[in-house]
Amino acid sequence: MWDRFLRACRREPVDATPVWFMRQAGRYMEEYRAIRQRHTLLEICLQPELAAEVTLQPVRKLGVDAAILFADILLPLEPMGASFHFAAGEGPVFDQPVRDASAVEALRIIDPVESLPHVLEAIRILRAELDGRTPLIGFAGAPFTLASYLVEGGKSQNYANTKRMMYRDPGLWNALMEKLAEVVRSYLRAQVAAGAQAVQLFDSWVGSLCPDDYVQFIQPHVRGILSDLQATGVPVIHFGTNTGALLEHLRDAGGTVIGVDWRTPLDLARRRLGAGVAVQGNLDPLLLGAPRPLLDARVENILERAGSEPGHVFNLGHGILPDTSPDTAKYVVDLVHERTAR
Amino acid sequence: MWDRFLRACRREPVDATPVWFMRQAGRYMEEYRAIRQRHTLLEICLQPELAAEVTLQPVRKLGVDAAILFADILLPLEPMGASFHFAAGEGPVFDQPVRDASAVEALRIIDPVESLPHVLEAIRILRAELDGRTPLIGFAGAPFTLASYLVEGGKSQNYANTKRMMYRDPGLWNALMEKLAEVVRSYLRAQVAAGAQAVQLFDSWVGSLCPDDYVQFIQPHVRGILSDLQATGVPVIHFGTNTGALLEHLRDAGGTVIGVDWRTPLDLARRRLGAGVAVQGNLDPLLLGAPRPLLDARVENILERAGSEPGHVFNLGHGILPDTSPDTAKYVVDLVHERTAR
Repeated sequence: MWDRFLRACRREPVDATPVWFMRQAGRYMEEYRAIRQRHTLLEICLQPELAAEVTLQPVRKLGVDAAILFADILLPLEPMGASFHFAAGEGPVFDQPVRDASAVEALRIIDPVESLPHVLEAIRILRAELDGRTPLIGFAGAPFTLASYLVEGGKSQNYANTKRMMYRDPGLWNALMEKLAEVVRSYLRAQVAAGAQAVQLFDSWVGSLCPDDYVQFIQPHVRGILSDLQATGVPVIHFGTNTGALLEHLRDAGGTVIGVDWRTPLDLARRRLGAGVAVQGNLDPLLLGAPRPLLDARVENILERAGSEPGHVFNLGHGILPDTSPDTAKYVVDLVHERTAR
Repeated sequence: MWDRFLRACRREPVDATPVWFMRQAGRYMEEYRAIRQRHTLLEICLQPELAAEVTLQPVRKLGVDAAILFADILLPLEPMGASFHFAAGEGPVFDQPVRDASAVEALRIIDPVESLPHVLEAIRILRAELDGRTPLIGFAGAPFTLASYLVEGGKSQNYANTKRMMYRDPGLWNALMEKLAEVVRSYLRAQVAAGAQAVQLFDSWVGSLCPDDYVQFIQPHVRGILSDLQATGVPVIHFGTNTGALLEHLRDAGGTVIGVDWRTPLDLARRRLGAGVAVQGNLDPLLLGAPRPLLDARVENILERAGSEPGHVFNLGHGILPDTSPDTAKYVVDLVHERTAR
């Protein structure tokens, strides 16, 4: 069943639980490392043929049930006016953190068709390549997570500058979030128009907030994006980490599928989220490095907790790690298929 | 009521909700910075009079309802044989990460009376100083959190090496945890014998684990420590961050009070934990930098969610941050007292 991923997102019966891995195209695969020897990450993103090739690598090698476009959540920020580079071992570093009204003012609301044509072209190439065999997922970072990079100037431990702006200048914060939300909305719309058959909204760092802050400062902006996307009819996966206390609020903000990290057992997540959404997750990426008996037990446990009602997409709780063995990743794909075949 | 903190820990009625702040003695206070200009953090820990003086600073300045011994959770590791230093802006760095059998083997099980006499002496000085006015809290890091520093060699983003040891060599992992648990147990026992009127077990990083891993690899070791401490009769606060999905398991491991970070609303925490334990928390430390109306609303909200049943100790969800205004910290102490006076 080529579309078991899309069917599971819609809580329709499937022949086996679909599997894909966040960051499934990446450094743990030698085919990817071979391309990275000649190109930077951003170069791959900018060249549609390369991005498409890298996207296809894990589909061929692992037999996952969905392809996810190779791209970076930060891509829209560069044309918005926030330039960055990847520092060795540090992740992204922004040349000018966005911390005051003039910096927020200076951010441009881009048209993704003009500013990110390479991403949309990669989607078109991939659809032609994969059509009817493997569904293609597009994605974007959510406003809070993007804002955290802009305001902190890169990764952060505690999001101190981001929360400070949010608390001390909610007018400025909302202006920043509105710009980001509009860009994310139109970017995801453009991806769907180009052929993405599902999209994932990565609010990876939103779990750093208390629920009251989420509801007051974040949720309205995410809701706007997700209600607009609903009109496209494609499934939307709404993902974050450390969201154990936010699950209901993420659901209320929208999404066809709620992504759950490894900290929250899926039976609990499904009970709290109710029957109206599917769930995605939730193996700790580091368990891919565990011996087989332990890995087997944890995979089994996730499948049991996910239950027999339709609506489970098997995934990790966050991105696959560079030192993962591709053989183990493939082993898990096969194990999930085998154990859930019906 | 000088002992409202101890009474709240035991879920006895109080005249007002007690307040203290994790890391309440620290860089945000100019009195502390004055001492740090002349002494390193470890020098202060090693000189009982200095440690006692620093411990008293927030008691005098903020009027908190408990003093917490000034020390560092890593102190027992040095005499165990794992030497470290604090690198500027990086936190602790261990000279030799503990990653194999010989490194675990080499760790010594210390007698805290011999190896950490300065800590116990600081407790005796403080009890003489504070007796009958402010209760004194002792503390230690929990085995997982200490192990994470040892195995990673310092702070970590994803605890990859720690989890790898746990998954791949459970025998070695348990040997490491057993040594740490025995040291933590006897260290806390010695603190109580020296006069600590309550203790807090900091399992700060345990929320990086999925519940199954916690139950299998961590809980037995923590349970041993906490059941032994129960015999002393002093309240034990069992604290971690990102523990939204672990709260029941922390409770089952033991503790008179469960520390809750800002991500989990206290009404939900109390409902899940049941009437048998008190709760401590849970303001986001960054909210101390928010304008008063927002700070007031969030404090109010925490008090409401904590409810009217005895058994709430007001605190932050994690340590106070260096750029916090001491005036705001004092404002929150007074606000909580005022709003809960009965």
